[in-house]
Amino acid sequence: MLKYRNGLKDIPVYNTREQDWDIKVNANECNMNLPPVVEERLMGRLSCLAYNRYPTEEYDALCDQIARNHRIRKENILLGNGSSEIIEKLFYCFGGNKLRKIVYPAPSFSMYPIYAQAAQATGIPFQLNDDYSMDVEAFTETVNGQKAGLAVICNPNNPTGNGFSVSDIEYIADHIHPNCALLIDEAYMEFFGHTAAALLHDHPNLIIARTFSKAYALASARVGYMLADERIVSMIEKAFMPYHMNSLSLAAADIVYQMRHEYVPRIQMIVAERKRMSTMLDKLPGVIVYPSETNFLLIRYSKAALLTEYLASKKIGVRCFGKDSGLRDCIRISIGLREENDIWYDAVKAFVEERA
Amino acid sequence: MLKYRNGLKDIPVYNTREQDWDIKVNANECNMNLPPVVEERLMGRLSCLAYNRYPTEEYDALCDQIARNHRIRKENILLGNGSSEIIEKLFYCFGGNKLRKIVYPAPSFSMYPIYAQAAQATGIPFQLNDDYSMDVEAFTETVNGQKAGLAVICNPNNPTGNGFSVSDIEYIADHIHPNCALLIDEAYMEFFGHTAAALLHDHPNLIIARTFSKAYALASARVGYMLADERIVSMIEKAFMPYHMNSLSLAAADIVYQMRHEYVPRIQMIVAERKRMSTMLDKLPGVIVYPSETNFLLIRYSKAALLTEYLASKKIGVRCFGKDSGLRDCIRISIGLREENDIWYDAVKAFVEERA
Repeated sequence: MLKYRNGLKDIPVYNTREQDWDIKVNANECNMNLPPVVEERLMGRLSCLAYNRYPTEEYDALCDQIARNHRIRKENILLGNGSSEIIEKLFYCFGGNKLRKIVYPAPSFSMYPIYAQAAQATGIPFQLNDDYSMDVEAFTETVNGQKAGLAVICNPNNPTGNGFSVSDIEYIADHIHPNCALLIDEAYMEFFGHTAAALLHDHPNLIIARTFSKAYALASARVGYMLADERIVSMIEKAFMPYHMNSLSLAAADIVYQMRHEYVPRIQMIVAERKRMSTMLDKLPGVIVYPSETNFLLIRYSKAALLTEYLASKKIGVRCFGKDSGLRDCIRISIGLREENDIWYDAVKAFVEERA
Repeated sequence: MLKYRNGLKDIPVYNTREQDWDIKVNANECNMNLPPVVEERLMGRLSCLAYNRYPTEEYDALCDQIARNHRIRKENILLGNGSSEIIEKLFYCFGGNKLRKIVYPAPSFSMYPIYAQAAQATGIPFQLNDDYSMDVEAFTETVNGQKAGLAVICNPNNPTGNGFSVSDIEYIADHIHPNCALLIDEAYMEFFGHTAAALLHDHPNLIIARTFSKAYALASARVGYMLADERIVSMIEKAFMPYHMNSLSLAAADIVYQMRHEYVPRIQMIVAERKRMSTMLDKLPGVIVYPSETNFLLIRYSKAALLTEYLASKKIGVRCFGKDSGLRDCIRISIGLREENDIWYDAVKAFVEERA
């Protein structure tokens, strides 16, 4: 018997297997590939890359660009293989020994408890209200009462879809103990339009995480970043391997970021579609639609599991949460292209109305 | 004060900053970019990638191909962001609690002790002989005596360059306690020609790590893999994030692997150049050249630091180990193109002969 790390065998493997969907609205990906003008520039860049060299310049180039946009310094930025890796490493850095406590909302991103487990931290889920709103005073009291080392808020929240106001985030940032780091996971921020980035200046314990996987349609490349005080960046950096990012993905993110204005109409289109689908779903008997500030909708329906199976039989992939705490009978549907949305909506409608 | 993980502040950051070298022979990269025929096929693939989708198919495609080549199953393979990530995760999985022990040779890859530290394992360096050969009986006794959870051998060894015979590896595999995992880090295997892969069948505790960064000239993409018993693969997999690999790098590695016969003449050329440079360096007064089975040479010279500075002034980048234990006054020089090798050799010769 090999002597694995304590607790390793209990860490679940996140299932990333996919079926051959006709309409894939289960992973909150953007349903459009790169804008042609972006793809063209990317191909130009990739055709003159030094494939034989370890990545160095490309890392700095992307950091410089992000820094300029946020009017901060390069030393305030750390890049990761998706914001997932940023989050994983933050949990590692603020975890350990089972004594370190990390508070995160529930329901929220399903990897938070797993990263806490892998970091040998004590994960403390803070229950959101029934409508997924947050009692910010109670959250702050939990963080302070538990003497947590890290508090996490996903804003807007996945998979519930709702956003928390910047003033709520500010309340938390102002009231949690300054020796607790506060991570705001803004993976879906571009669909919401509100960010806590302006609070960085006055809150040296604040960390903002962003990703290229959602609004920027670059899930393939696995690029995310964090913004924080340079003292935090230089500590978290220790947990990353040398050359942890690759040049191809960095080049892709660099070009996408340069051309991010190209994404504005797409983001507006997704938001408009989300509103359209929300209104339509709301009319279906027995279907509860939760407010969303993201590129997906969360619905609750008593026959969620059966509906998911029915949609799968039509080669439509959605994400069902089954009996998960706080998400009982909930399905998350990403916003696709207009024609895709019409197709999955018609299928949902047919199923629901037949059983009404 | 933020409450970081115990020991985090003591983990050093590996310096990846580069100067603007004319001749860069400091990182054991291949000094040629992709063969044109490979680049052409890669550009074709990258131009039809679903950039908006999380990586799934690309991961499986590369695993399938590697499995077919090694006549093993896909379940025996795990991909990582360079073999570095494979090694980092193996150290994590066999580390923890300061009680778990990991034995590795010294001198060897400088990240082993750092990964041990990050994994909160006790790293146990096993001293190689003065000529960098290994006393395999003593190594085995150390591993068994320490009740280590993981033993590591880098073969051929970086930065010393020498290779250990398959029969030596087999002796160790046969004699270490079966509850200790044995990792053979074969990053430079293609220049050596000998692998322990054939031992996998009879040794369920054996793990082989490989990389695309050296012989396959793909350091930019950060792709490596491990071969092992499927029970090991399914445990180590738990330590990886979902979607830890990106589609662009996977596509690049997939095409390079398909066309790996294109690399055979290049590898032969590098080996021939290594022999030529070794013979030439050996004639210089006061320079000791160690035997190498890799794409680099290790030399020992009493004024190593001054020589490194002199080469840097000529914009030639080499790796000097300064006062590192077992590598005192040693310099590692990667094999470049023939004309690059002539240039750095002339500079070394001029410096050494002037001071002889």
